[in-house]
Amino acid sequence: MGSKQPDRRAFLKRGAALAGGLSLGAVEPAIGQTPASGQSVEGQSQEAQDYSSDELIAYGQRSHHVTSVREPVNGRPSPDEFGLVFHVGTPLGDQMGAITPSALHYVGTTRGSFVPDIDPAEHRLMIHGLVDRELIFTMDELKRFPSVTRLHFIECAGNRTSSRHRTIVDSHGMTSCAEWTGVLLRTLLEEAGVQDEGTWIVAEGVEEVKGASSLPMAKAMDDILVAYAMNGEPIRPQQGFPLRIVVPGFEGILSVKWLRRIKVVDRFYMTYNDYGHLRQDSDDAALSYQIGPKSVITFPSGGQELTGTGFYEVRGLAWSGGGVVSRVEVSTDGGESWMDADIRGTPQRMAHTAFSFNWTWDGSEAVLMSRCTDEIGQVQPSREQVAEFWGRSGVKGQDNSIQPWRIERDGSVHNAIT
Amino acid sequence: MGSKQPDRRAFLKRGAALAGGLSLGAVEPAIGQTPASGQSVEGQSQEAQDYSSDELIAYGQRSHHVTSVREPVNGRPSPDEFGLVFHVGTPLGDQMGAITPSALHYVGTTRGSFVPDIDPAEHRLMIHGLVDRELIFTMDELKRFPSVTRLHFIECAGNRTSSRHRTIVDSHGMTSCAEWTGVLLRTLLEEAGVQDEGTWIVAEGVEEVKGASSLPMAKAMDDILVAYAMNGEPIRPQQGFPLRIVVPGFEGILSVKWLRRIKVVDRFYMTYNDYGHLRQDSDDAALSYQIGPKSVITFPSGGQELTGTGFYEVRGLAWSGGGVVSRVEVSTDGGESWMDADIRGTPQRMAHTAFSFNWTWDGSEAVLMSRCTDEIGQVQPSREQVAEFWGRSGVKGQDNSIQPWRIERDGSVHNAIT
Repeated sequence: MGSKQPDRRAFLKRGAALAGGLSLGAVEPAIGQTPASGQSVEGQSQEAQDYSSDELIAYGQRSHHVTSVREPVNGRPSPDEFGLVFHVGTPLGDQMGAITPSALHYVGTTRGSFVPDIDPAEHRLMIHGLVDRELIFTMDELKRFPSVTRLHFIECAGNRTSSRHRTIVDSHGMTSCAEWTGVLLRTLLEEAGVQDEGTWIVAEGVEEVKGASSLPMAKAMDDILVAYAMNGEPIRPQQGFPLRIVVPGFEGILSVKWLRRIKVVDRFYMTYNDYGHLRQDSDDAALSYQIGPKSVITFPSGGQELTGTGFYEVRGLAWSGGGVVSRVEVSTDGGESWMDADIRGTPQRMAHTAFSFNWTWDGSEAVLMSRCTDEIGQVQPSREQVAEFWGRSGVKGQDNSIQPWRIERDGSVHNAIT
Repeated sequence: MGSKQPDRRAFLKRGAALAGGLSLGAVEPAIGQTPASGQSVEGQSQEAQDYSSDELIAYGQRSHHVTSVREPVNGRPSPDEFGLVFHVGTPLGDQMGAITPSALHYVGTTRGSFVPDIDPAEHRLMIHGLVDRELIFTMDELKRFPSVTRLHFIECAGNRTSSRHRTIVDSHGMTSCAEWTGVLLRTLLEEAGVQDEGTWIVAEGVEEVKGASSLPMAKAMDDILVAYAMNGEPIRPQQGFPLRIVVPGFEGILSVKWLRRIKVVDRFYMTYNDYGHLRQDSDDAALSYQIGPKSVITFPSGGQELTGTGFYEVRGLAWSGGGVVSRVEVSTDGGESWMDADIRGTPQRMAHTAFSFNWTWDGSEAVLMSRCTDEIGQVQPSREQVAEFWGRSGVKGQDNSIQPWRIERDGSVHNAIT
């Protein structure tokens, strides 16, 4: 990979050369202190408090000191011609690791807080249309089928780079990643028997506006999941409890929640969920569904602050609808030079992939960027390349362009798009 | 692998041969029904209810229809000579996928519900003893170090096979798996500078009884994590918020929670956490720390029920302190014959690995078992082999023997240990 980034432990050596101390400036106060008996450590508060009730033993909660929450993207709901579309973003700036906690998975839905309260014992999935056998499944029946467990991101095409975005929640908060478990749609379609003229499906969920997606049969027979679990437990209500489809690598709007019906059809049906594509020709209607190679630095990102010069681990996420992330590069000089970042663990197909990059900040202004390359060779474009592609009319579909963050001399971090 | 198990889709063919219908008996009622317009599906309740408050949008909760909870293992707290040891098990019978939801991660702690309420802004980690520089870190300082993210199981050595266990919570509930993020302990020890005579560490947490673990320096310099996050967010209070060590593959008791101090020492120090090992010779004190190759069928397991004959996907988890799970076999005839199970995804080192096995139940009594082999060739032993090893005195350390589940003719599932 020819990485030019500093060695993982080089920060120690550099630190020793600087001021005779550690580069981790914040640690320095500890030097020279020699706790005789660790009294100052042992003296810490250790009273048991709120976590002792039977209820919390049964199903644990997070610490009351942890306050990271989802937020409305750009600070407000977005009304459109169909009503109030509510986008609540994942606090990616607080992200640690690759999995998004279920409680913080982004929500992009209509009518604001609309979440159906579905009794799983009463819920049914119907498969009909151009099939040999129309079928209705209960949840218990679906769980008897062979299942798969896969890590996948879901990203809304509404994630855009813009000069008006202050934080990463505004620019990238509508992407999240979970371990999904369910049945391959292919398994159910084979049970129903797809007829020769069945070339598309329409998946329908219990939602008025975003309730239906047209998807090509090739994708349906490939890797679409009919999912009933995320991160080891039943899907959460805001993510589609008790059943949804997960369409790996495609725009999030197509992963219909609260799934109740799949109809096999012989053509592309245009629905609200194609809003933005505006193509009625089934030959190319799905061509722009797939998310391009993408990445973003989550730390340091807009609104965060560096507390002093010295060593920092730059952290971020990369993903692509094209498959596995094969390379992530980082620039600390606004895109003039690029160096390979470390990819964490084993990247999974169409899943957030955590990356990191060892960096020593010298206190001068710096612009940080990341760039993703996927297994089929697609490279995340610059903002200029995306603008050139779409021309004057502005970005109509996805925007997977590179996000720059500017570190000011005072350590504050800002969106560097002008 | 030479798998002899039925093909993933063979259940469809078998189904077609049986009674002219599907083997998924429960689905059969749907056959012949031809919903004209899907009215019966669309008529489902879709009222928005409890999930619309700002609070739930900020940090989502599970559906009120989902009631899976942790339970005291064997239905009661276990008093011992040091006080009340409370073991709360993960409901593995409801497990989907490999990750344990943080809210359901098992808890093995002293004094029942004791959970310290630690303010992370005040928390400190001290590293002292046989080091060149004694150091005290704040949480913010720890987060500036290069971090790693890894999937690891933690299992209590108290997980035992026994004829008195009714469910999988009793037999295996004290193992869980999470995506942990933190700093390698090695990184911190190198910062402090371990002196030549430093051959062991003692890690100490804010807990009276289980608060200290002795660990050999070789393990400390290998893969021990000083972890501050699990499953994408800060560690939950019951799992050690804000800081714990994770000792991959070793008995869970050694992964000290609420970590505040690590002392580098020149010998093995015996603590409560060696209860059960009873070895004071540092040459072999740690030899029995490592969890052997292990697996258990989570469905069908004790207390569950099969609702009819036909196709079932047998599901389970396998893990080993020896590294990656390389093979899982399943027997449906009480261990007379074994067939390869499907391993889900890419197995990770010292992590739960989900497996599945396609099985058609003909309605007769059957005894199901699973057997794990790890990358270094260790094979999970039978109950007889374990008994032979330990002799009359009974199992003193871990028990990683094979768990048999008996399916009765009425579909009920029972522990088959006699």
